[in-house]
Amino acid sequence: MAGTMNIGIIGVGRIGKIHAENIAYLIPQARLKAVADLNMTSAIEAWARGLGVQAVYRDPAALLADEDIQAVLVCSSTDTHADFVIKAAAAGKHVFCEKPVDLTVAKVRAALDAVKKAGVKLQVGFNRRFDHNFRRVRELVESGAVGEPHVIKITSRDPAPPPPTYVAGSGGIFLDMMIHDFDMARYQAGSEVVEVYAAGAVLVDEAIGKAGDIDTAIVTLRFANGALGVIDNSRKAVYGYDQRLEVFGSKGVACAENDTPSAVRLSNESGVSGDKPLYFFLERYKDAFVAEVRAFIAAIAEGKTPPVTGEDGLQDLLVALAAKKSLVEKRPVKLSELSTR
Amino acid sequence: MAGTMNIGIIGVGRIGKIHAENIAYLIPQARLKAVADLNMTSAIEAWARGLGVQAVYRDPAALLADEDIQAVLVCSSTDTHADFVIKAAAAGKHVFCEKPVDLTVAKVRAALDAVKKAGVKLQVGFNRRFDHNFRRVRELVESGAVGEPHVIKITSRDPAPPPPTYVAGSGGIFLDMMIHDFDMARYQAGSEVVEVYAAGAVLVDEAIGKAGDIDTAIVTLRFANGALGVIDNSRKAVYGYDQRLEVFGSKGVACAENDTPSAVRLSNESGVSGDKPLYFFLERYKDAFVAEVRAFIAAIAEGKTPPVTGEDGLQDLLVALAAKKSLVEKRPVKLSELSTR
Amino acid sequence: MAGTMNIGIIGVGRIGKIHAENIAYLIPQARLKAVADLNMTSAIEAWARGLGVQAVYRDPAALLADEDIQAVLVCSSTDTHADFVIKAAAAGKHVFCEKPVDLTVAKVRAALDAVKKAGVKLQVGFNRRFDHNFRRVRELVESGAVGEPHVIKITSRDPAPPPPTYVAGSGGIFLDMMIHDFDMARYQAGSEVVEVYAAGAVLVDEAIGKAGDIDTAIVTLRFANGALGVIDNSRKAVYGYDQRLEVFGSKGVACAENDTPSAVRLSNESGVSGDKPLYFFLERYKDAFVAEVRAFIAAIAEGKTPPVTGEDGLQDLLVALAAKKSLVEKRPVKLSELSTR
Amino acid sequence: MAGTMNIGIIGVGRIGKIHAENIAYLIPQARLKAVADLNMTSAIEAWARGLGVQAVYRDPAALLADEDIQAVLVCSSTDTHADFVIKAAAAGKHVFCEKPVDLTVAKVRAALDAVKKAGVKLQVGFNRRFDHNFRRVRELVESGAVGEPHVIKITSRDPAPPPPTYVAGSGGIFLDMMIHDFDMARYQAGSEVVEVYAAGAVLVDEAIGKAGDIDTAIVTLRFANGALGVIDNSRKAVYGYDQRLEVFGSKGVACAENDTPSAVRLSNESGVSGDKPLYFFLERYKDAFVAEVRAFIAAIAEGKTPPVTGEDGLQDLLVALAAKKSLVEKRPVKLSELSTR
Repeated sequence: MAGTMNIGIIGVGRIGKIHAENIAYLIPQARLKAVADLNMTSAIEAWARGLGVQAVYRDPAALLADEDIQAVLVCSSTDTHADFVIKAAAAGKHVFCEKPVDLTVAKVRAALDAVKKAGVKLQVGFNRRFDHNFRRVRELVESGAVGEPHVIKITSRDPAPPPPTYVAGSGGIFLDMMIHDFDMARYQAGSEVVEVYAAGAVLVDEAIGKAGDIDTAIVTLRFANGALGVIDNSRKAVYGYDQRLEVFGSKGVACAENDTPSAVRLSNESGVSGDKPLYFFLERYKDAFVAEVRAFIAAIAEGKTPPVTGEDGLQDLLVALAAKKSLVEKRPVKLSELSTR
Repeated sequence: MAGTMNIGIIGVGRIGKIHAENIAYLIPQARLKAVADLNMTSAIEAWARGLGVQAVYRDPAALLADEDIQAVLVCSSTDTHADFVIKAAAAGKHVFCEKPVDLTVAKVRAALDAVKKAGVKLQVGFNRRFDHNFRRVRELVESGAVGEPHVIKITSRDPAPPPPTYVAGSGGIFLDMMIHDFDMARYQAGSEVVEVYAAGAVLVDEAIGKAGDIDTAIVTLRFANGALGVIDNSRKAVYGYDQRLEVFGSKGVACAENDTPSAVRLSNESGVSGDKPLYFFLERYKDAFVAEVRAFIAAIAEGKTPPVTGEDGLQDLLVALAAKKSLVEKRPVKLSELSTR
Repeated sequence: MAGTMNIGIIGVGRIGKIHAENIAYLIPQARLKAVADLNMTSAIEAWARGLGVQAVYRDPAALLADEDIQAVLVCSSTDTHADFVIKAAAAGKHVFCEKPVDLTVAKVRAALDAVKKAGVKLQVGFNRRFDHNFRRVRELVESGAVGEPHVIKITSRDPAPPPPTYVAGSGGIFLDMMIHDFDMARYQAGSEVVEVYAAGAVLVDEAIGKAGDIDTAIVTLRFANGALGVIDNSRKAVYGYDQRLEVFGSKGVACAENDTPSAVRLSNESGVSGDKPLYFFLERYKDAFVAEVRAFIAAIAEGKTPPVTGEDGLQDLLVALAAKKSLVEKRPVKLSELSTR
Repeated sequence: MAGTMNIGIIGVGRIGKIHAENIAYLIPQARLKAVADLNMTSAIEAWARGLGVQAVYRDPAALLADEDIQAVLVCSSTDTHADFVIKAAAAGKHVFCEKPVDLTVAKVRAALDAVKKAGVKLQVGFNRRFDHNFRRVRELVESGAVGEPHVIKITSRDPAPPPPTYVAGSGGIFLDMMIHDFDMARYQAGSEVVEVYAAGAVLVDEAIGKAGDIDTAIVTLRFANGALGVIDNSRKAVYGYDQRLEVFGSKGVACAENDTPSAVRLSNESGVSGDKPLYFFLERYKDAFVAEVRAFIAAIAEGKTPPVTGEDGLQDLLVALAAKKSLVEKRPVKLSELSTR
């Protein structure tokens, strides 16, 4: 295809590999030309060659120096995201950055400034906006079918907690896990969060508490347009990945239920039973990972603003930081209390 | 039946009439001997005679003087509940009192003291505990099927707001509407509420705001056993009475969906559609109204504690008052801050 | 009520008792004045007196001689139905007759002739037409929502087979069990059956086979309006009473699912599970039994044709007899092959 | 990958293209080396080159002459299937043949004989066996969860009828459409069909009737193991592709419902509504098309019998021919009446 776009990926761990395979197999509008990873191994290189990748680097700078590459996916560890966004922008590349851009407002701001100065596009990897169910709810909201939104409700529970060591460096449940839900709540509400109240508990695993985090949380949101929101998170739902939401408004309510591996029900002496939800994010959001990169490439090709901007990433971070502050200070926190620089 | 119990009802407005007809037609263990209403009319008298009621009074004292009557249902206006409970107890009658017993702790306490002193039984009309769906959830929780409860979630939305004039005297959304949900949350959690945070908004009808109340609310609860709870209320769900709950715990989640008038779905060019939820509480809780009075009568007959005690009523009131205080003071409120006398 | 209708019931076994209690408790437009049963016992008499029945007879003739009684419910054993219909009609009573009127065309015809001659009304107890789900489907069909009906599909399975001794005298699965479904198919199609093909097997219990019957059957119907129908029956569904139907047409399909005791689902490590269908006909069609008698009484009061006529009962019988013949002769059978006298 | 298998495709119309793209993008175990099409165009050639196909032929013989190619997919028009199977087998290629192998027993038999003689493997393209829902039902049946199968019920309706011109050459609804359901019924029953009764009607489009076919059919099956089956087909379901089945047995029932584009429900004043089923076979069986070719390649690689054999294809054809005969002769037809050569 004449307009095929050359793509590079920095960081090919779990999520980077998923993006790489999606581009290679499912996104004909793009060509994965190069990958870079500070921990490049011969196994990774062989995998990349198998996908038809031309250039395999240890040093991301080498990838960024390739003038044929128009866009870069930053999939490295979170603490390096902002730096690579800045460097990629400086090299004139459009950037898709996995979430979060950073755990501090200052570094996110720096990245956004760099992107703005370079005049490139930035999309943040809040993939759930591309989930078929949540997008369908948003379409219904945008169509006016639920009227004015009054309450946004999100249930988001993981099938199993991460190891306590991970928790320690994750920034905590609000920055690591619920930030996806904050983004979803803002997306569905079509309005910014102005106040947050967070209640939390350690009910799943005491080691998480010892690591200074909580594993169960309920957060109440107040939006600029007057709507309320509520999100509940748990690090462990034994029945699998529980990802539901509803938008309740003046004309109705749109509810997204979980997806299941099959639509089969067995009725026997014990009752009527069916499948558990799809196990975890790789299964549930499989298509959403493809769709978000397609949307990024389309935005570049058509010169449009990407569907999840750097400003979105910053706002999501602010909500998460406010939730953290609310939990510590045991009071509702206004976003206006936080520095946005 | 030798053991048939004679019942009197004080107050035969909408809810008193329902109890009367249920006793007359559906509860053969009891006989509705007398009704009393300060606003007795010939139409009410005719209706009562049609049910086989022997004695029809304007003055409740006359009903309470009947020594054949063993139990009394107090279904008069809320401001008279506590007085009639006290008088009925003094007359040696067991009492079923519609919720709430009173809007003030002091009067509830006085009623409870009177009941205790008289040695009679008191049940408060939190009928939803007898709903087939919510009771089934509770059975699952009690059986251990959901493990340790972590999060109690309740959605409770009315099909249409009451008139603003009603709102003014109702005590507000927490005392009038969400108090049902506080009772349900305590029932499902099997634990007492220790802290409350309430967020509210006027999104349905400005007149409700002018009357000093809110019409949309999200309340976060913390229970003594460590579990968290969240309740969302709206005064207006255009699709009908939305009464759902879930109890999420260490071993699973039990979810109660809405009941519908039929289990029919129509698939056509527009999609797949089915019935709205049952319209309002008279439809949804029809059987629960019967079951709660049956349980009251059984408790008396068997000399057991009624399933919803006066102490339950008091705790529910305290939670509602804490929510009200939280909304005003914009902070989480501990129940221990409130006077319990 | 001035217009209260006096009712007598002949035969107070299981189904007669249900009708008696429904009239006593739930149908204020009627008064159950008398019951008669050839096997009257003191227990039955006590039960009847408890319902407020004035007259309790061993001899149905005594009941029919009571001039105050306007309508009679014939709930005796099937072999006596036609005779009591004839006698009741001769006594000028309107008649509600449990299904089937008889197992032979000749006796049904005699009963219908007697009813016609006497100018009284006759309703046959095909209670499923009054089920909330099936009635909702019919409303959708009548409204045009499914367009021209193309296929009527009915699944009807009992939770457990009757004793083989019962089977022997029942007339077989088509006359005893599927006759309900033939009536439902005709009701939903709005057209008469013209041809039947029956396939059957003994898969549940060999004793049923030894008694000369089958326990599993699939019957294909062809209607006068061109639509097709298919019914499958089993004498044993271990998960309970399976009563579903769908009407598929040019504009869509209306599907009635089973009712369940609760709308609760439990998700745990094993999957997502819910209640089995309501156990058997007493549970599933509880309200339908009330509604059919209400409709009968209303038809008399308003001088209208009852909603399930004697002609319906005759047609249902003819379809069942055609199915029986088809099974034996292993070929499709046209209803026009059967004598209708 | 060392063991990558070289594949050729004969016929790259709609279904051939789908297989080609699936092999190119989603089945890394295979490499699509060549395609052939009697109607090769420059557009098809460009498409094939874009997939990385090395050789593009007009003459299938040229493809079959390539010794590197181990397996061939026959996706040409139905009337050429058997010939290409025979030629491919003679060339020593394993063969995947789209269904049906042929519309006559004699030609299917010839193809099966050729395959047997050549010692190659043959899989027939009954893709629905690989559908996630139907496979899940089969797993439940095989696990014993439904006990002995008593009734297999299949509903299969297309969203829109094919053009009458297509109908004329299709072999009719049983050979063209219901043959998929016959295969599914045999697969689920785990037993062969011994008798068939077909009822049909022209209700969707008179032009189909004029073309000598029907558009609505109900077929009753009797299996060797005693189970019964019933299939209903319609050429037009306005709500989309309706693909459901249930297997009812001595221990329960497994029911596969339709898949939908989303799990979102909208509740508003009109009711509760959700998505229609996935539109047609390309959407519903998208993954099944991939899975069947993966299974074919795995069977070759592991030296096993493919999951849908030529004998399956022959039996499905016999059932379809028996249904056709039953429709014409208006009587149940035993498969033993048909010649199997």
